[in-house]
Amino acid sequence: MQLLEQTILKYGKVYAGDVLKVDSFLNHQVDVALLNKMGAELAGRFAGEGITKVLTLEASGIAVAIMAALSLGVKMVFAKKAKTSNSSSDVYTGRVHSYTRGKDFEIVVSKEYLGKDDNVLIVDDFLATGSALYGMIDIINQAGARLKGVGIAIEKGYQGGGDKLRGEGVRVESLAIIDKMSEDGIVFRG
Amino acid sequence: MQLLEQTILKYGKVYAGDVLKVDSFLNHQVDVALLNKMGAELAGRFAGEGITKVLTLEASGIAVAIMAALSLGVKMVFAKKAKTSNSSSDVYTGRVHSYTRGKDFEIVVSKEYLGKDDNVLIVDDFLATGSALYGMIDIINQAGARLKGVGIAIEKGYQGGGDKLRGEGVRVESLAIIDKMSEDGIVFRG
Repeated sequence: MQLLEQTILKYGKVYAGDVLKVDSFLNHQVDVALLNKMGAELAGRFAGEGITKVLTLEASGIAVAIMAALSLGVKMVFAKKAKTSNSSSDVYTGRVHSYTRGKDFEIVVSKEYLGKDDNVLIVDDFLATGSALYGMIDIINQAGARLKGVGIAIEKGYQGGGDKLRGEGVRVESLAIIDKMSEDGIVFRG
Repeated sequence: MQLLEQTILKYGKVYAGDVLKVDSFLNHQVDVALLNKMGAELAGRFAGEGITKVLTLEASGIAVAIMAALSLGVKMVFAKKAKTSNSSSDVYTGRVHSYTRGKDFEIVVSKEYLGKDDNVLIVDDFLATGSALYGMIDIINQAGARLKGVGIAIEKGYQGGGDKLRGEGVRVESLAIIDKMSEDGIVFRG
């Protein structure tokens, strides 16, 4: 999506440690008009897949997920980061590794909001190694629902998570795929 | 807003300890079509106020705030819950008391995204004592911006935070105000 790539080039900031800050339009301040276009673009790519629900992870995934759900005309569910270890029978749980914080955490979705009749589109702001996605896919499988695809705002292609999922047969659509990134510049996948 | 009141009556669950669970449409699963209408209603109430930015607090405020910002045609900023005590000169900080967790926490907004030219509408999902709002108002004042009003999905009127703010001259618009709530039922303000 050219508009997103241009916005990343204009406002994104690359820092040491493989950090791309997009706080000015995605992760802190939200350019809602841009997000609306991004949501519509993702919805268009998955039109005809019979999506019944969009799934994301709080907090930074919510903005783009809600816009995709708005365009698709379906409800959105955001997995919550469990504050305490959760073995309640009312929730599905998944495990996610946080590279920034160097540890695993648990995510939960209430069994009420995901079930075997659901065709799920996962939407998230970033895709790097895919750890958050595997946690959500685990939850979708527990619910007996079907994963119809993954829609991502910005994929760090060089980290391999997206291509690993594609290799496993998951349809992954990213609005911008970064193949190379340094303080000298950003190269998008062709 | 009648549609929201009806949805609360139909799907909201009241638990001991003054808990209203609206997980099925607002706080975990999000009824995006309803939220879009709520955002449009809030935007309509503050039309003509020259709003330049919507401010909310992650995570549960994001959904309704983004919809209000979409209707207003402005950007949205979500204050972040600081993971560590933050005395950086790059951020404004506010303090919020969490009654559920029984302690204070710090919220931060980057100085880049709020400034003296901004007319701010705070939007949040719940208003009870108003602690989160006072934290955000503090940040707006630090930024030299103007608070034009507060738009809320569900106000627990009997907790007094909304009326206290109104008494201080803040325009508070809530889409549903609960004046009484128990496991026997919910009474909305006339």
